Amino acid sequence: MGDAIRNIAQAVNAGQTSARSVMEDAIARIEAYDAVQPQAWISRPGNAALIAMAEAVDRRVATGERLQLAGVPFAVKDNIDVAGLATTAACPDFAYRPEQSATVVAKLEAAGAICVGKTNLDQFATGLNGTRSPYGIPTCVYNRDMVSGGSSSGSGVVVAAGLVPFALGTDTAGSGRVPAAINGCVGFKPSKGRWSTTGLLPACRSIDCISVFTCSVSDAALIDGIVAGFDEDDPYSRCMSDQPRSGPRPVFGIPLADQREFFGDREAEDLFDRAIERCRQLGGEIVEIDIGPLLDAGKMLYGGPYVAERYASVGAFIEGNPDATHPVVASIVKSGLRYDAADTFAAAYVMQDLMRKADGIWAQIDALVLPTTPTCYSIVDMLAEPFGRNARLGHYTSAINLLDMSAIALPVGFRADRTGFGISLIGPAFADEALFDLAERFADGVGGDAPELDMAGGERVLLAVVGAHLHGMPLHWQLDTRGAQLQRKTQTTSAYQLYAMADATPPKPALVHVGAGGTAIEVEVYSLSLEQFGSFVAEVPPPLAIGTLDLDDGTQVKGFVAEARATIDGKNVSSFGSWRAYIQDLSKGGAVTTNATD
Amino acid sequence: MGDAIRNIAQAVNAGQTSARSVMEDAIARIEAYDAVQPQAWISRPGNAALIAMAEAVDRRVATGERLQLAGVPFAVKDNIDVAGLATTAACPDFAYRPEQSATVVAKLEAAGAICVGKTNLDQFATGLNGTRSPYGIPTCVYNRDMVSGGSSSGSGVVVAAGLVPFALGTDTAGSGRVPAAINGCVGFKPSKGRWSTTGLLPACRSIDCISVFTCSVSDAALIDGIVAGFDEDDPYSRCMSDQPRSGPRPVFGIPLADQREFFGDREAEDLFDRAIERCRQLGGEIVEIDIGPLLDAGKMLYGGPYVAERYASVGAFIEGNPDATHPVVASIVKSGLRYDAADTFAAAYVMQDLMRKADGIWAQIDALVLPTTPTCYSIVDMLAEPFGRNARLGHYTSAINLLDMSAIALPVGFRADRTGFGISLIGPAFADEALFDLAERFADGVGGDAPELDMAGGERVLLAVVGAHLHGMPLHWQLDTRGAQLQRKTQTTSAYQLYAMADATPPKPALVHVGAGGTAIEVEVYSLSLEQFGSFVAEVPPPLAIGTLDLDDGTQVKGFVAEARATIDGKNVSSFGSWRAYIQDLSKGGAVTTNATD
Repeated sequence: MGDAIRNIAQAVNAGQTSARSVMEDAIARIEAYDAVQPQAWISRPGNAALIAMAEAVDRRVATGERLQLAGVPFAVKDNIDVAGLATTAACPDFAYRPEQSATVVAKLEAAGAICVGKTNLDQFATGLNGTRSPYGIPTCVYNRDMVSGGSSSGSGVVVAAGLVPFALGTDTAGSGRVPAAINGCVGFKPSKGRWSTTGLLPACRSIDCISVFTCSVSDAALIDGIVAGFDEDDPYSRCMSDQPRSGPRPVFGIPLADQREFFGDREAEDLFDRAIERCRQLGGEIVEIDIGPLLDAGKMLYGGPYVAERYASVGAFIEGNPDATHPVVASIVKSGLRYDAADTFAAAYVMQDLMRKADGIWAQIDALVLPTTPTCYSIVDMLAEPFGRNARLGHYTSAINLLDMSAIALPVGFRADRTGFGISLIGPAFADEALFDLAERFADGVGGDAPELDMAGGERVLLAVVGAHLHGMPLHWQLDTRGAQLQRKTQTTSAYQLYAMADATPPKPALVHVGAGGTAIEVEVYSLSLEQFGSFVAEVPPPLAIGTLDLDDGTQVKGFVAEARATIDGKNVSSFGSWRAYIQDLSKGGAVTTNATD
Repeated sequence: MGDAIRNIAQAVNAGQTSARSVMEDAIARIEAYDAVQPQAWISRPGNAALIAMAEAVDRRVATGERLQLAGVPFAVKDNIDVAGLATTAACPDFAYRPEQSATVVAKLEAAGAICVGKTNLDQFATGLNGTRSPYGIPTCVYNRDMVSGGSSSGSGVVVAAGLVPFALGTDTAGSGRVPAAINGCVGFKPSKGRWSTTGLLPACRSIDCISVFTCSVSDAALIDGIVAGFDEDDPYSRCMSDQPRSGPRPVFGIPLADQREFFGDREAEDLFDRAIERCRQLGGEIVEIDIGPLLDAGKMLYGGPYVAERYASVGAFIEGNPDATHPVVASIVKSGLRYDAADTFAAAYVMQDLMRKADGIWAQIDALVLPTTPTCYSIVDMLAEPFGRNARLGHYTSAINLLDMSAIALPVGFRADRTGFGISLIGPAFADEALFDLAERFADGVGGDAPELDMAGGERVLLAVVGAHLHGMPLHWQLDTRGAQLQRKTQTTSAYQLYAMADATPPKPALVHVGAGGTAIEVEVYSLSLEQFGSFVAEVPPPLAIGTLDLDDGTQVKGFVAEARATIDGKNVSSFGSWRAYIQDLSKGGAVTTNATD
């Protein structure tokens, strides 16, 4: 899309098109892509509201206003407030409706941009992979089996899929850069305190940044020019003192040979070599740098007291709502409880020392060139090892905010499996403009031809599970190993009864449609490819079967049903409303009392 | 003493005197004052070593070197390393012998200054009053009943008593300023990171500053010029960017009327009014400022997770050596355990917000003028309420390092009781030179005539207590209420036996001199004025008496002895080595077994 933002705004300002027309096109793209990855979004205003907003921009332009972002549609990660839309942070029970938009959103809207929706994310921005959301798992736009990267999963996807020319993300450990790498777009993470964080739900408040995904460096610079600036309401906002731009022969730092870690991904290694070659083509000098201080600092982000910043932000909610949180996210946030105040200060001293060592880099080079991600994982592999593989995605990104650096992630090319590989240009605090300059030079002529978008979404089947396949239950692995993606947690219409089958191992329910007098029963809806779905159905043992369920949102999906014989000698456990609740009661020794409901 | 440092160095460089001669004079002053407050010092090199160091300076001068501090004697707070002398931090069991001097000490010595000794402090620099040291309680130089202020108690005393023209202190909550106020000298606390802290035992490492006491502003500026500068070995060192100096009509900020807190000290209030009047005389404008953010931040230093920085520094030592630490200090350090990592980050967010609010001050004024201490306390009163009264001493000082400000404490005048009252000029980070300039203008003509030094030390009596008067024991209050000052903890020669007297309430021992075959028994040595001593002896009940004890350091002091009848039906508890150990054993139910030693 090139300089899409600038081009749209110019055309609208010049009257060559209207914001309304731009919005109609955007809506059409978004709706078409809903057949592929509806889970890229958590919420969107209705189309009529979007058209009305566009018409309001057209009226401003008609009165002579020249708006830098006239009619430009954009998306916002759902941990950033947009007035009129809920902020969920990918946790439905946490959701609230902000009265005010975040300061950066308000600046964008004042410049004529229009927010078309809130995007999916790893819950509470805790993750770098995109699989940790009850709203479904966004995927790489070019290969639907591969992770999208996170936590700004939806924002990376909607930009890379061409739905909007820019989307706000956030970046603590790399969340604004990893999805850019995997989806082949640009991800700019400003210096800490350069963009206001007023209206952002904190992850690690002392180092959180709001970031932007775009299709070009100049678009990222354009957005930075609009939203950067001191905010007296944000205690972490800082006055800027820009670092100078590099000269015609910039010095690029790359890791020492034995620090170039790709976890066996030879294609990534070759693509990184291509990036280094590109730096040389620019007239740059390449210097090997010991990135040990960055690697050490990065490991401290989740492996030390800093994780307690997440607990400070959402710990009370998680404790008070034990079932409302993604289990991996809850586990990470609660790990903050392991550390006491003295640990925290001791870690701060180590970090201060690492920062001093890392600062020494800038005397030697203009910018550090690191792989953004060393490798990429399939969703199946990520779910199988959610902690370790997530950490690998952040190998090169996790330290950057802790060490007070600025960064921009740029595409370099694609692997044979069509996942993107990119580099990040990294500078000291307030090198943002210098990085834009270097990034423009670097990006001019690299990035590779993007593959065709993977539009495989239409071929997927939605499957509702009700018993032993629920998340955390004994047979859930049969979904994980098939790359099933959680779409939503919901319930059936009030037309069902749930029986605990006699003699089933592991314990399993039978869901029976009874019509009037029934109960709504909790289900989880997953999407699977046709092939995955077929292999799954083939393994369902009698008396269970895969039929069609009526959900209380009015939709019908495939799901577990049962032959009549399934309820013989079974217990009616409908009053629990969910198999999970029944099993929990059973494990507390409540089994006898439930006979009363037979 | 005026610009003593500059004058000494000039005279030595010019050959008008020698460093040796300067040192001989200093030794004479120091030894004379040993009769008053030997407890100002923790250790000193021998006189021969001092003379040799002075002669070495004379040789450097003789070869043509011009040394900014040629032959200037100085003292160093005993939590800062000086090669060749132990660093105790006022905790004998913690002591270590550093191989290298702290960076600032090395810079001073390179400039020709000579360290004549290490000064007493509140243990581990935890306190603002000076009473928390096993090496005795330094007092205000003008009134020996009043606290010296702390934690840099000894450094403030040795400068104010004229023993040395400057002494290094440290400042976390005000330790470099409070003793200056009470003893009527200058205390300069540089911006965080301006002076290297390499070689400083941390109190709260992220905000600790090394500071200096002098008799004039220009002397403080002279020292700053020598020791300030970036230290790449100190992760908290910072590159400086000096704030501009004020113009001829500086704007001074003073607290809002209802924020001028003196805890009932009308004299202090009048002296503060005098300081404000002095600011007006300078051509300055006076503006009332809401210092709420400073007061709120100050309360967080001990009343929140920041106290865990102290635990991070010395917590492991205190846990491992439960009897080695001053009980008040141990209690404060251990209070850091109350806080977890999430508390710490939550506090950091509050502090960041307060810093933002406080920063707004500098748009309105050139410098803040605050009382350094709102009032002053007697040693007796301080010991009676060690937490609350200490906090009051830090009312105006505790926030300054947390909020990243610079400060210089200046004398204003004296109360009728001869304790000093002073103000602090406070600026933002790196306003150090601007503050020197303002302070020079302010100090020229104020400060009042200093009272005569209180040389009452020679009239004091040393009293060794062995039982119920030990610190923490039931009758210890009889010492506290008499302003007794702990001089040292030691033991008798091995010529004694200790008996638990029959039927004594509270339990009391009788110490019996037996000569060969006896045991060394733990004692605490206190100093009391003759009058206090007399009143104490008058209250000692039979069969106890005050006689003379032989201590294992070869000295003889007054102390508790007993008539022969005291041991009738008593238990010989000598094997415990101390009454405290016996009582502790008793409280654990060990009383029966001790009969075996009868």
